[in-house]
This record gives sequence, C-alpha cells and structure tokens, in this order.
Amino acid sequence: MTERRDGRTPEDLRPVTIERGWSSQAEGSALISFGDTRVLCTASFTNGVPRWLQGKGRGWVTAEYAMLPRATNDRSDRESVKGRIGGRTHEISRLIGRSLRAVVDTKALGENTVVLDCDVLQADGGTRTAAITGAYVALADAIEWAREKRFVGQRSQPLVDSVAAVSVGIIDGAPMLDLAYTEDVRAETDMNVVATGRGLFVEVQGTAEGATFDRRELDGLLDLALAGTARLTELQRAALAGER
Amino acid sequence: MTERRDGRTPEDLRPVTIERGWSSQAEGSALISFGDTRVLCTASFTNGVPRWLQGKGRGWVTAEYAMLPRATNDRSDRESVKGRIGGRTHEISRLIGRSLRAVVDTKALGENTVVLDCDVLQADGGTRTAAITGAYVALADAIEWAREKRFVGQRSQPLVDSVAAVSVGIIDGAPMLDLAYTEDVRAETDMNVVATGRGLFVEVQGTAEGATFDRRELDGLLDLALAGTARLTELQRAALAGER
Amino acid sequence: MTERRDGRTPEDLRPVTIERGWSSQAEGSALISFGDTRVLCTASFTNGVPRWLQGKGRGWVTAEYAMLPRATNDRSDRESVKGRIGGRTHEISRLIGRSLRAVVDTKALGENTVVLDCDVLQADGGTRTAAITGAYVALADAIEWAREKRFVGQRSQPLVDSVAAVSVGIIDGAPMLDLAYTEDVRAETDMNVVATGRGLFVEVQGTAEGATFDRRELDGLLDLALAGTARLTELQRAALAGER
Amino acid sequence: MTERRDGRTPEDLRPVTIERGWSSQAEGSALISFGDTRVLCTASFTNGVPRWLQGKGRGWVTAEYAMLPRATNDRSDRESVKGRIGGRTHEISRLIGRSLRAVVDTKALGENTVVLDCDVLQADGGTRTAAITGAYVALADAIEWAREKRFVGQRSQPLVDSVAAVSVGIIDGAPMLDLAYTEDVRAETDMNVVATGRGLFVEVQGTAEGATFDRRELDGLLDLALAGTARLTELQRAALAGER
Amino acid sequence: MTERRDGRTPEDLRPVTIERGWSSQAEGSALISFGDTRVLCTASFTNGVPRWLQGKGRGWVTAEYAMLPRATNDRSDRESVKGRIGGRTHEISRLIGRSLRAVVDTKALGENTVVLDCDVLQADGGTRTAAITGAYVALADAIEWAREKRFVGQRSQPLVDSVAAVSVGIIDGAPMLDLAYTEDVRAETDMNVVATGRGLFVEVQGTAEGATFDRRELDGLLDLALAGTARLTELQRAALAGER
Amino acid sequence: MTERRDGRTPEDLRPVTIERGWSSQAEGSALISFGDTRVLCTASFTNGVPRWLQGKGRGWVTAEYAMLPRATNDRSDRESVKGRIGGRTHEISRLIGRSLRAVVDTKALGENTVVLDCDVLQADGGTRTAAITGAYVALADAIEWAREKRFVGQRSQPLVDSVAAVSVGIIDGAPMLDLAYTEDVRAETDMNVVATGRGLFVEVQGTAEGATFDRRELDGLLDLALAGTARLTELQRAALAGER
Repeated sequence: MTERRDGRTPEDLRPVTIERGWSSQAEGSALISFGDTRVLCTASFTNGVPRWLQGKGRGWVTAEYAMLPRATNDRSDRESVKGRIGGRTHEISRLIGRSLRAVVDTKALGENTVVLDCDVLQADGGTRTAAITGAYVALADAIEWAREKRFVGQRSQPLVDSVAAVSVGIIDGAPMLDLAYTEDVRAETDMNVVATGRGLFVEVQGTAEGATFDRRELDGLLDLALAGTARLTELQRAALAGER
Repeated sequence: MTERRDGRTPEDLRPVTIERGWSSQAEGSALISFGDTRVLCTASFTNGVPRWLQGKGRGWVTAEYAMLPRATNDRSDRESVKGRIGGRTHEISRLIGRSLRAVVDTKALGENTVVLDCDVLQADGGTRTAAITGAYVALADAIEWAREKRFVGQRSQPLVDSVAAVSVGIIDGAPMLDLAYTEDVRAETDMNVVATGRGLFVEVQGTAEGATFDRRELDGLLDLALAGTARLTELQRAALAGER
Repeated sequence: MTERRDGRTPEDLRPVTIERGWSSQAEGSALISFGDTRVLCTASFTNGVPRWLQGKGRGWVTAEYAMLPRATNDRSDRESVKGRIGGRTHEISRLIGRSLRAVVDTKALGENTVVLDCDVLQADGGTRTAAITGAYVALADAIEWAREKRFVGQRSQPLVDSVAAVSVGIIDGAPMLDLAYTEDVRAETDMNVVATGRGLFVEVQGTAEGATFDRRELDGLLDLALAGTARLTELQRAALAGER
Repeated sequence: MTERRDGRTPEDLRPVTIERGWSSQAEGSALISFGDTRVLCTASFTNGVPRWLQGKGRGWVTAEYAMLPRATNDRSDRESVKGRIGGRTHEISRLIGRSLRAVVDTKALGENTVVLDCDVLQADGGTRTAAITGAYVALADAIEWAREKRFVGQRSQPLVDSVAAVSVGIIDGAPMLDLAYTEDVRAETDMNVVATGRGLFVEVQGTAEGATFDRRELDGLLDLALAGTARLTELQRAALAGER
Repeated sequence: MTERRDGRTPEDLRPVTIERGWSSQAEGSALISFGDTRVLCTASFTNGVPRWLQGKGRGWVTAEYAMLPRATNDRSDRESVKGRIGGRTHEISRLIGRSLRAVVDTKALGENTVVLDCDVLQADGGTRTAAITGAYVALADAIEWAREKRFVGQRSQPLVDSVAAVSVGIIDGAPMLDLAYTEDVRAETDMNVVATGRGLFVEVQGTAEGATFDRRELDGLLDLALAGTARLTELQRAALAGER
Repeated sequence: MTERRDGRTPEDLRPVTIERGWSSQAEGSALISFGDTRVLCTASFTNGVPRWLQGKGRGWVTAEYAMLPRATNDRSDRESVKGRIGGRTHEISRLIGRSLRAVVDTKALGENTVVLDCDVLQADGGTRTAAITGAYVALADAIEWAREKRFVGQRSQPLVDSVAAVSVGIIDGAPMLDLAYTEDVRAETDMNVVATGRGLFVEVQGTAEGATFDRRELDGLLDLALAGTARLTELQRAALAGER
C-alpha cells in the first residue's frame, strides 16, 4: 500500500479548519486551511450589477484568485509587477466563480453583486479546492448580512445548495484524496471535483499529468472525491452553525 | 426525442473536414472544420527548448489559441488591442498544450520545440475540440518533417499515440455529441473530453452550466464522447494517410 | 533584363484570386490571394458611431490589420501575448483605414460604423496591398447588406469609387510590379500605391530601402503602379459582379 | 482635550502584536497588527544579487507592498487586474526598502538578496508603518537563518541596528500618535517617521493634508514619533527574544 | 570647510532663471532652471472636474512629472515604451500635486481642473524642487487667465499663498543647500522641503541615504531649507510681476 | 491667389531656427523651430549594437518621437500613463529612423548605436519634418564627437549625405509649402517629403485627406517640396558650420 508522507490513509482529508469572520471589513469571510494550505476568502456584497446585466432583475457572483508571492517555497513574482495575470490564475478564478454560481439563484439575489476574493497566504497543494470550500462560507455570511440589511428580500433564499471541492489523484497506481504539494507533483492523474451539499457534480476536471487514464480509474477517483466533498460539506455546516 | 436544428441525431458529429498542409510556411498544418467551425492549426518546429528545460535531453510542445475578431456573430475586440489575453484564451491554450503533450514522448523528441498555433477563423461551437483534433494532424506532419530533416532520430518516434477531442452536453435532459453554438448555449451541462486513439482519457472537463449533474448523467456523456473521439481518430488517420 | 524567380515580367501581377463571402458570420468578407499571400478580410457593420462622432450625421470606417504568428517563414510572437501592438501593425492598420475612407461618403453612410479586419493567414510580400484590395470587396458587400436591411437609405450610395493597392519597387535598377517577399528584401526602393477605380491617387508611400531615388525613377514606379491598380480594379469588379 | 474614539491618550500606540514565524515557507516572517491593521511580512533570502550589483561583494534588500482587495472597507480593484501598480503602492514599497536598507551592512550580507513582501490583509491606517516594523522582524529571522545555513559568515552581522516606524498627526490642533483610519482622514498634518533602535532618523515624511504646519508643530510631532518608535523597538526585541 | 565644485557656499542656491510664458499653447507656463536642471512646466486649465468630484462645487489640481530620455547623462528608456510608469515618477508626480494643492482654495477655483505637466528637459539634481517652484508660476498664470475669461469669479482668489521647494543635504557632515547631481550622489542625508511664501511647511521629506541623522542635523537642514525657499519665493514674485 | 494667414507665399517656409548643442548631456543635440513648432532633438551615441546585429561589423541608428502632453492646444494624455504608444507615434518614430539611416554608412559607423530622441515641446504642424531636419544636426554632432573620441575611425565618414524633410499640401486647389497646423487641417492632400542634401528622395508619403489627387498635382507638390528641402539643407549647413 502507498504510504502517505503525513501518515494519512488514501481516503483521508488533511486537517481542515475554517476560521469564519476573519475579516472585520468584509460582509463575509473565512480563513480556511487544508493542512498547510491557507486561503483567505472574503465576500464583498454591493448593490447593482455589471452593465451587461442591468435591468434583468438578476444578481451576479464572481471570483478572483491570487497567491501571495511567498505563499510557495520559492518566491514568485507578483502578477501586478509583471503587469499581467497568468493563465493559471485566470483559469482558477473562473473555476471558483462558476462553482459558486452553480448554487446561487441569481433571481433571488436581486440586482446585487458578490465578489469572492480568494488569496492564498500559504500554499501546499489544493489551493483551488480550499478556495472554493472557503468561499462558500464567506458567501453564505455575505448573503445573510444582505438579508439582515434588507438588500435581499427576507423570504428570498439565493443559496439553493452548498458547494465544496477537493482534489484526487492517482499516485503509483493508487487513488488518493486531497493531495498535498509533494503528492500533486508525483500524481499521474490529477482531478478536481466540485460538488454540492446534495452530492451533485458542479465541475469535474481530470487531467493526465504523466499517464492517460481509463474509465475504471476515473470511476475510482470520482468515488473518492464525492466522499471528500461530503465531509467538507459537514465542516462547512459546522462552521456556519456557530455565532458569526 | 430532442430534434437537432441541423437534422443530426444525438450521436452524430457535424461534418468534419481536415485540409492537411494548408500552409506553405509551417512544418505542419491543417485547416479543420467541425461544421461551420473552422480552425487553422499550424505546427512550428524549432531546434532548442526554453531555458528552463535546457540540458535535460527533452523537447517541448506548447500551444496558443486565438480567435479572429469576426470569427463570431458579433465582432469582439482583439486581445492585442486590449493589451491582454483573456482568461478563456489562456485556459484553452493551456488545455491544447496539455492534450498534445500527453501523446508526445519528449525524450524521443530531443531538445526541440513544437509550437501549435490554433487560430479560429470561424466559430460555431466546439472551437477548442476542433483545435486539438486539428493540431494533432499538424503536429504529426511537423514531426515527420523533422525526421526527414534528421532533427529527430530516424528510429525515434516522439508520438506515442494520437489525440482527438469532442464536446458533449445535456440539452433538455438528453445527452448530445459535438454541440453547435446554439446548442452549447442551451446546454445544462457541457463537457469536453480529450482522448487518445487507444481510447484513454487525457482530459475530462465537465461543467454544470445551468443545472448540476449526477453520476448517471456523467456516465452517459462519457460514453457518447468516447464514441465521438473514436470517429475523429479515424478521420485523422485518413487525413494523414494521404500525400502531404 | 532582370528575370523574376517566378517567371513574371516586370509588369505582371502575381495570380490574384478573390474568394468573396468566405465568412458566414460577417456582413461582408473576402479571402484574397496575391500569389502565396493570403489575407482574410471581413467587414463588420454596426449601427452607431464612436462617441467623438455622435450626432454629426456621419458614419465611420476603420481597419485593423494583423498577421497570424506562422503566416511567415519564421514564427513571430503574437502581439496579444506581447501585450502591445507593434509599430508596423499600427502603421498598416491606419493605412488601410485611410484608404477605404477615401472612397466612402460618410454622410451617405449615416451614423453607422464599418470595421474592416484584415488578417494575414499567409505572407509572401504585399500583405498591406492585398489587404486594401480585399477589404474593398468586403466593404462593398457589407454596404450592400446594410442597404438591403435599410440601415442605409436605398437611394444613398456611400461608395463613391472603388479602391485597390499594389506595391512596386526597383530591383537591380529596374522597376517591378507586385513584389513577392524575396523581391521585397532585395528592392532598393519600395513603394506602395493606393489608387481609386478612376485612377486617382489615395496614398503614395515610397521608401528608399537601400538607395535613394530620383524623380525619373519615381515616375517609372508610379506608371507601373497605376497599371497594376487598374488591373486589380477589374478583378474587384468581376468578383462583385457574381452572386454573393 | 481631544478624545480618541478608541479611548487612547494622544501618546498611546494601538495594541501591537507580532506573530513571528507565521509562514512555514519563508526564511523569516511576521504577522503584525497595529490595532485592526494586519500585515503579513515575509522575508525571502536568495543567493546572488541583481545584475547591476554583481561582483561588488555587496548584498541587496528590497521590498514590495500590496493590499488585498478587501483589506479596506470598500473593495478596491487588484493591481494585477488593472495591469499596473499605482503610485501609492510604488511609493510605499520604495519607502519600506529604503528603511530596511538603512540598518543593513550590505558588505556583511555578501552577494545575497532579501526580498521583503508586506501584504496588508486588513487595513485601518498605518499600514506602511506596521509593514516596516514587521518587516524588520522577518528580516532579522531570515538573516539568522542564513547564518545558520552559512550563506552569511558566522562572524558577519549584516544588521547594524533595528528599525521601526510610526505615524503621527495633528488633529484639531493636537498631536496624536499612531493614527487609525478615521483619525488619519481628519488629520490636518500627517507624518510618518522611521527611526532606528538607537533613536536616529531614517525617514521623516510630513505632509500638510489640509493645513500647512509650522516649526513648533513639526517639533511636537517628532517628539511624539520618537517615543512611539522606542516602544515599538521594545516590542520587536521581545518578539525576537522568543523561540523561532 | 567643504568646498563646492561650482564655487558656491553651503547656503547658496544655484543660478535660478524662470522663463515665464514659454509655451504659446498652455494657459500658464514656465521654463525654470536651477543651474543645469531645466524643467518645462505647463498649466492646463479645463472646465469640469473628475467624476468622483462632480457636484461638490470644488476644483481639482493635479500634476504629472516626467523626464525626457536624454535629460540625464545616460539615456534611459521611455516609460511609454516600457509601458509602465516607474515608482520614482509616480512618487514625484504625487508630491508636486500635493504641494500645489496646499496653496489652492478649491472652493474658490470652482468646478475647474488644472493639470500641471512638469517635463524635465535636462537633469542635474533637484528636478522635483525645480518642478514645484516652476509649476507654481505656471499655475498662477493659468488662474489669472481663467479669471480674465470669467471661468473663475473676479472676486475669487483660488491661490491662498505661493509655494516653492528646495533640496538640502548633509555632505561630509556639513549641511548644503540645493544639491547638484554630483552632490546628491555623495550626500549622507537628503531632504526635500516644500514651503509656502509665508514660510510654513507643506512637505518635509528627509531620507538617510548612507547614514542615519539625529535631531540636531535635522534642525540644521530645516533652517537652511527655509532660507532657500524664501529666496525662491522672491524670484517667483519677480517673475510674476512682469508682463505675461 | 490663396492668402496664407501668416503672410507667407505658397513657396515660403516658416522662419526656421536651429539651436545646436542645446543639451549639455547628449553627444549631439538641436532645438529646432519651424515657426511655432519646436522640437528638441538629441543624439545618444553608445558603443555596441542590438543583439540581432552583433558581430556583423555594422552600426545602428534608430529614433523615438514623442509629444509633450501640452505641446498642442488641447492637452493629450501621456502615452506612459496610457501604458501604450499610439499608432501615430510609432509611425513617425519609424519614419525618422528610416530617414536618418538613409544617409548613414553603417559599416563606417562600426558596431555603435545612435538613438535619436525627438521630443515635440510645442506643436503647430510639421512636427515630423522638423524632427527629421533637427535630428540630422544632432546626429552629425554625435558622429563628430565619436570621431574625436576615436569610437569611429578618423578616416571613416559614416554620413554619406545630409537629410531634411518638409510638408507640402494642396489647399483650395493650390500647392503650399510647410503647412502650419491650421493649414494642415484644411489641406485636401498632405504630403511629407524627405530628401537628401543632393536632392534625392528618401521618403515620399502623400495622403488624400479629403480629395484624391492626380498625377499633375503630385508633380506640383514634389517640385515645391524639393525646393523646401534644398533651403533646409542650407540652414543645416550653416548651423553645423559654427562652433559646437
């Protein structure tokens, strides 16, 4: 059996903590950790929508992902200094936005916008999945704030489900849940799965990093991932059950 | 049964044509059509590799995707004029590059680089899947050219398999192959599948556009997609079997 | 006598083809070839004008020129990737725009805009002159489309003349028409002439590449160029005489 | 007497905490708080210096400052998205760099570089002074790390002094130490003072925000500031005295 | 005693000339020289204010500073070519803007904007202080122009004081006024002081370049600087007293 | 007969002055005026050539043109602030570079580079022609400087001829020399002619601004232009005949 460096079994998540309400400025926020990966997620609620959406009675949810330069083992240049956003950043920002929108009823949100900022303070693999999982908590609090402020109707419930994400991969032929950075580098196949609290898929992104994969391997990864997102869903519920 | 506007059954590809060797400048090229979607794919072979790969005895394959401004029904601004590449362009360029690298033995390629340029001349849905499918043909010709020029050893075979891609989606609850633009807009779930000639997965990217999807729906889409990539593989072989 | 590599006499154009209506998306389009130079020209007609022209009862015609990265023998970096448009691109885009505006009565066009996109798919010298010549065909079709759609009055004729362009140069002391790339490189003097169907000048741009030129040489080049644009005018008329 | 909203006297700092070693990736790090202002400071030590300094036997210390988009009450656009760094960011990055270099003996540092990243996670006034004060702690740890790794000689002491910074301002005619955001907005004069542990000035930057100031007022502000930096020096010592 | 290369005493300014009304295009202008440093300052007066200030009955004054590429001994790349403005440029532009705003009553200015452009034609130290001193003259003329044109009320006086700036520094332990470039490079401490005609401080920016400085040294520098700005104030008055 | 606003005959240049050696920093410089148009031209001589030219024993001459924001009647935004260089700037920079290279023997120049910076301090039409005419004077001085410094061989003469430029245009049907801004706006046809001291053409750029032009009109413009460049050649000689 493949031993994991940190003693986990293949089916184990890393220790996950969700520090809800970390920011005193944002309408919703969460500092989430998946092991040594730490992502600060804030939700900014504003009235109004982008111009292309005005007058349609629907809201908008979008996301921006970024990494601090020394989140990683080697310092990387700031994208603001380079003057352009890299492909990876773009791709992950878009993924987070789509994932959150999948559980939002934009009609119920009204003509309001929520921007989710997911800034990776420390990176050890799984930053995009931690970001999605934490962003949901921040979003839930921002929407609750908006209901209290009557920016969203008391009877409206813009959140139709919860959403969480986890990575899975095949290492030395065996499927593994929630890869740390050193595992991610070794994985032959890498997959990110975004699923709702009810266990429905939002995104399935599997990539052959070093070796192509067959249908049976894909099935094994999906099983493992759904078990992982189910546990993350419980942790989100627990975090949201407490006092804000 | 869902009727498709163009008379296809759910399992039908659109008419696919591959005009191999379209360019007299590039080492390999193909003008590929999936219905009204037309993508010009060129493969540029050069000796040497990017600096970060030098001295490792391995080659490099990368891709750039772009759309002409009037490829679409409404003209879009040029990314060169905007001064920045959009997230979608970045994401697709990276997907094409990963997909092609999955069938390349970079040791056998030697310290050489192939850049695949996929420029969408006309867009009607499925531009990224047409791009991958056409880029493989251009790549195969560029590698053959390099073997004739002895830039790649006569006994080396850098291509370990072929690769093709197709989109699938769920429309009004039914799975459909190779979505045209008007279908893509209506799809509840949209998936792009990249697979090798041997039928192994390279990339699986499924997205809930309007409705989340369950395991059974995912399975149906994967079946349809693998049938589609198998047919595209045959068309690639036929194109490559002719005179250059 | 100077022999031309491709067997032409100094007064010969390369084979010119105009594939009108190449695009199913644009209001007007033409894929034009001057020998191995191939340029896809599309005309996008939209209601309204840029802000600085609003309320003056006049229309606007502008152009953007670009080259695909592997249009040339060596691949060049994309301007979108570099994040800025080069001087040559800017210069040619402006030339095309001015040339087309010279034959447009903007009052008759009404407050409408036509954007001409000229994308060089393959380059072998004379890309700007092919672009102007092809753009005129695309423009003519876009204006005809607008008249049919009643965006332009039935009695209005925004086109006051046709326009075509050709290059001329002095090679080994002899004037030559329509230079291919290998000729262009050798030319001591290089001139681009844009003229109307009636034979009037729109632009005359002569440049001493390696040797300055005198008045007599200039006169010889102008004679040759006007003969060339006259023949291109006939080819444009023939293309536009057919079915769209 | 001017009452301060948070109950402080004019001579009081806000509660200051320094969480040393916050990052498991960086060679030195500190999460510093001045009240609700929280700045994550990391020090990245690398061998070698920028090209313009090579071969001179001297090291280099530089800094980059940035704010997370929702550090403030209203979300601001990311500088990476805008594609350019604003003047304020530039100005503060340069100030931090100069301030730290003032206490570094670059000969003793050898041909090594330390980059200090100061990312404002939450902002409530005084972000640049918190950044300088925290960056010193991160720098001290990075240099200690380098000595242990023998990248810096055991007998070399690159740090010739410590450095801390504080803001002072005149509000309703009275000088105040360490302005919170709401105080900063009301201040007639605003000054940032950077001083060493020995009480010598590194930077004095006073700005008339609403009213010019005379020599006597300047003297009062300088007295207050030096008392503040003396207290911050003690807190830095206490933080560095503990276990890393 | 420290001898200055150009024979000045420590308390001497370099020869200062103010060529008022240098531009025939701008509403106000001055070509100012501090020795070999020459800065062209223009003031552009326009009706209206930036959007964020509209409807508040107040005007706006802002500044932009730049250097011609060969203003200095070695040619530097143009910031327009690099595609971004450097930190030093940003910092100085902001300083000039703040300095001028300190003597403007924006209510009296009405909803009008003045942009001060300070372009360094030749640089020999003290470019920012020459820019501020010359910009005041250009501003005064632009406001006078606006009063004549009745864009500013006849009884309104937007200028509440004059403003000038000078550099001071410690070289070999001795304070010196108005440093030339070769002096600036040698200075241990460098300070820029902006003061009004009445002798009140607007900005005090002192930086330890090589050695920190104590309170006594700071006091000596401030004395020297105020004597310098007093003399510059006289020169500004003399320039403004003549015919425009 | 068309009367010119400033009393000139159609064949008159505006008053032209050339202040040689304006800059104390550059190897060669000239402040040139064509009436109210004033351009500061500097020539920066450096050893070495761009990488693509290394080892070929040839030098390089290039140019950059720019306008100060308030050179014109309405202030225009800085290209450094916009983050990109406009098409017009690019086009003129390229024209100046080509024009100067036409009179340089790059072999005789050796592996050295001259950069010509032409900054328009005030604009009243003809800025590009003034820039070329002034840049030649700066270039001549920079090359003389390099010969004295022995960077260029004593027996080498990199300058094979002189070069000057002038604008001509047709206004109300009549050809005019050296158009001022108000004339330029009214011109039906506008032409810039660059010619050598011996009277040979370097560039001929004629543009139909409002009306196309025929062969006879073109001939009239060329006659007028050559007379103008001949007079400018004399003024250049006179300027260069004096002491540097």
